[in-house]
Amino acid sequence: MNTLPKPLARVIESFEKLPGVGPKTAQRLAFYLLHVPQEELEDFADNLSNLKKNTVLCTICKNVAEKDPCPICSNPSRNQSIICVVEEPTDVISIERTGKFNGVYHVLHGAIDPLNNIGPDEIYIDDLLKRLRNATVPVAEIILANNPNMEGEATSMYIQKQLSGISGQLKQKVMVTRLAHGLPVGSDIEYADEVTLSRALEGRREY
Amino acid sequence: MNTLPKPLARVIESFEKLPGVGPKTAQRLAFYLLHVPQEELEDFADNLSNLKKNTVLCTICKNVAEKDPCPICSNPSRNQSIICVVEEPTDVISIERTGKFNGVYHVLHGAIDPLNNIGPDEIYIDDLLKRLRNATVPVAEIILANNPNMEGEATSMYIQKQLSGISGQLKQKVMVTRLAHGLPVGSDIEYADEVTLSRALEGRREY
Repeated sequence: MNTLPKPLARVIESFEKLPGVGPKTAQRLAFYLLHVPQEELEDFADNLSNLKKNTVLCTICKNVAEKDPCPICSNPSRNQSIICVVEEPTDVISIERTGKFNGVYHVLHGAIDPLNNIGPDEIYIDDLLKRLRNATVPVAEIILANNPNMEGEATSMYIQKQLSGISGQLKQKVMVTRLAHGLPVGSDIEYADEVTLSRALEGRREY
Repeated sequence: MNTLPKPLARVIESFEKLPGVGPKTAQRLAFYLLHVPQEELEDFADNLSNLKKNTVLCTICKNVAEKDPCPICSNPSRNQSIICVVEEPTDVISIERTGKFNGVYHVLHGAIDPLNNIGPDEIYIDDLLKRLRNATVPVAEIILANNPNMEGEATSMYIQKQLSGISGQLKQKVMVTRLAHGLPVGSDIEYADEVTLSRALEGRREY
């Protein structure tokens, strides 16, 4: 590998640090960029360097945004009394893409994961509770949209417990809901795992 | 998608331009970079912006290098009379990694591919012929290490024809060889395609 020019080696190294990018992919991307106009490389470089400089976390919902509060929290046509709790900003994008939700969000930035030393204090759970206590518009519903895995379930359970703990301090009873579990659309029953299929049976609805 | 902050959208766009990176991966990478220290982002940006500024094509072998001539062409312990012709600079890295080749290279930067409007003049074939004619050390062997696919085969055949055309102008007869075709090591005969298996049979060697 002593034949690799340093500028190339450095770009390969940068790509290798990205999640899911191995040495082969990093090399392929770096060599591809050799054929790209310098202008485009500078654009790419500027975009990277400005990524964090020009973004903030919304103080209300903790989503990544250009302005604080974020466009969703400051949108008067969104229903401020329904808060959808998600793990990551990307989850907000996914839910927004459905066009079926007109409430607001709360981004936890992670899930409780004791194996990786992430406890309730490492994610924005306390901020959610504070937000409920201080809400000017009383909150009617909290949708727990955590990921349907071990860490997500643990986080939902923890939040639910905390919510019932502070229910006395709130102006209004808060309904806590969670997303439906069942068969993904377009899937095949034959290949569904038992847990998903059990949940689909339990949650069956009249036709 | 109107909720996506512009600095994020721009980074996603930059990643999406890379080959093999789809919108989902681009989004994942951009959001990952939000958690990376600003310093590391600046490093990444600098590496991209310097990639082409600090590299040149070696005038002898057309490989990407920091200096001209490249370290391989200017290495007195490499055998200048054996030239291995490859399609891409990454192929040089792969062959160097074997540690079995002590000659020099010629990088074509592509293969003849009429469907994509790449003819012999779009890649460095003429430079190879010129290099042979003007060689101070007479060239004894040309190894055609083009990719074993349609475009690579077409390119090899074209080069071979050109070489026999100029053979009268050279100081010495040049032997033209190509890489062996056969079963990849660690593979399974059951899953080998017919062409590979035929080549493996044709090229069988005494044990």
